[in-house]
Amino acid sequence: MSLADLIYLLEFVGIMAFAISGMLEAQNRDMDPVGVFAIACITAFGGGTLRDVILDHQPVYWISHQEFPIIILLLTIAFSYVPRLRAIPARAMILPDAIGLGIFTVLGTQLALSMGTPAFSACLLGVITGTFGGLARDIICNEVPFIFRKEHLYASCALAGAMTFYGLTFLVEGDAIPILVALAVTVVMRLLSVHFDLRLQRH
Amino acid sequence: MSLADLIYLLEFVGIMAFAISGMLEAQNRDMDPVGVFAIACITAFGGGTLRDVILDHQPVYWISHQEFPIIILLLTIAFSYVPRLRAIPARAMILPDAIGLGIFTVLGTQLALSMGTPAFSACLLGVITGTFGGLARDIICNEVPFIFRKEHLYASCALAGAMTFYGLTFLVEGDAIPILVALAVTVVMRLLSVHFDLRLQRH
Amino acid sequence: MSLADLIYLLEFVGIMAFAISGMLEAQNRDMDPVGVFAIACITAFGGGTLRDVILDHQPVYWISHQEFPIIILLLTIAFSYVPRLRAIPARAMILPDAIGLGIFTVLGTQLALSMGTPAFSACLLGVITGTFGGLARDIICNEVPFIFRKEHLYASCALAGAMTFYGLTFLVEGDAIPILVALAVTVVMRLLSVHFDLRLQRH
Repeated sequence: MSLADLIYLLEFVGIMAFAISGMLEAQNRDMDPVGVFAIACITAFGGGTLRDVILDHQPVYWISHQEFPIIILLLTIAFSYVPRLRAIPARAMILPDAIGLGIFTVLGTQLALSMGTPAFSACLLGVITGTFGGLARDIICNEVPFIFRKEHLYASCALAGAMTFYGLTFLVEGDAIPILVALAVTVVMRLLSVHFDLRLQRH
Repeated sequence: MSLADLIYLLEFVGIMAFAISGMLEAQNRDMDPVGVFAIACITAFGGGTLRDVILDHQPVYWISHQEFPIIILLLTIAFSYVPRLRAIPARAMILPDAIGLGIFTVLGTQLALSMGTPAFSACLLGVITGTFGGLARDIICNEVPFIFRKEHLYASCALAGAMTFYGLTFLVEGDAIPILVALAVTVVMRLLSVHFDLRLQRH
Repeated sequence: MSLADLIYLLEFVGIMAFAISGMLEAQNRDMDPVGVFAIACITAFGGGTLRDVILDHQPVYWISHQEFPIIILLLTIAFSYVPRLRAIPARAMILPDAIGLGIFTVLGTQLALSMGTPAFSACLLGVITGTFGGLARDIICNEVPFIFRKEHLYASCALAGAMTFYGLTFLVEGDAIPILVALAVTVVMRLLSVHFDLRLQRH
């Protein structure tokens, strides 16, 4: 499998994970199917769109890959007409959401570095790519965004993953292994923080 | 009248309609004239700016057409100092708002398709162009955005208009007739949904 | 000192002023250190990022100057672990915030004009550059944005500064003196409006 194939596959998984988390959130808000579709798209594409616009990376990825929004549309229709899908408890979304966070953070960092962005800016762009979709979802649903509430670690996991990716590119040849290891670091750190109720505390 | 003239004329009408709807909303929030001007500009230019940034279509249209923000400034001054203008009831804005929605949706779809965007992505960009201004207005005014509340159809009308435009480009030569028919479809569908209190319901 | 040096110096001062105002706001919201860093970055970089994206001015300035986010990171760490820094009263931020507003407004206008933007659009872009960071901060913290509340003049000061800059470029050779005079106009007007409790009233 080439690097481009790996990236496409991960992007697909990350988009699905975020789209589903957006749908569950929209349902809690009692939105109609079009609202559910819109929130799912914003959650899934928000981070990557902002990344592409800031880096001037054209075309924006979901513009050239219309299969992504079409699949979200089909998911929304299924979600709206099959009651059992809507019974997924919010807790069940923690793993997919962590995977989406890890994938978008690492791929955002990788793309920025490959375009010659300085290291710290590239890590920040990775964090933006990983978190902006959920941030936009929460702003639109009129909440104080999830990532800024003192509930476990979130952006910190993304930053750790981005820095892990950057560090590994010096030790390992090729981007595939750094991508997978940094993804694992983000996901495991996120799950541990939820499980053990870790927070950053001020002293 | 050339296609470019038709597009310019429609853009002008759409901008005015959305600017006025922004002013009425800002007034309900008891903002000062600068706030009224800012909300009017955000409502009128928000969708087109996001479209141009995502498509990398330079220069962003209000940047090169400064007559648009200047007219909004003059409208704001009139609006702030002529009490009778502020007495326009919110209901009176439903038609102009529907026209603005239709115009920006169809022109956004047309521009995206003319730049080679795949069909479904182009329709989504059209919907974004038509709805983002009102969405940003509602977010800034700290409301759950209008388009996501279960009140009649809104984004659905935009999506129907965008798809009508795309379909008609295969049947009719030139873009002018598809633009006008798709605009009519969006406006009529929106007005019918308000009049008959239509909603998308889940089953 | 060359014009480029002057711009870099002013940008540095403006970023620091806005970053600190973001930190104070985030602290009032009881956010953890990562939230404080994120809000500081959004306040400091929001306006310039939107300006660069709208003007297609690549690379976006904090992407190529990673020293800016790194300094904000160090400031955040200091801020999070030195309680005395957090005791700064909100009133003490009025001067730095006015300076940040003035600097970003004038530099945004100057950049837009230097890229051939028509005058009124360039002034609007300056106002956007000066105000968007604080606007984004307030939206994320889920408040009705500061600049739209009827509390003293804010965006009006930015607009006056932008127009002063534009007018002076006809009278004076070079951009350095117009930058400094327009900056002074914005800051003094803002401070006077706070001191004398000035507002725009409707008649």
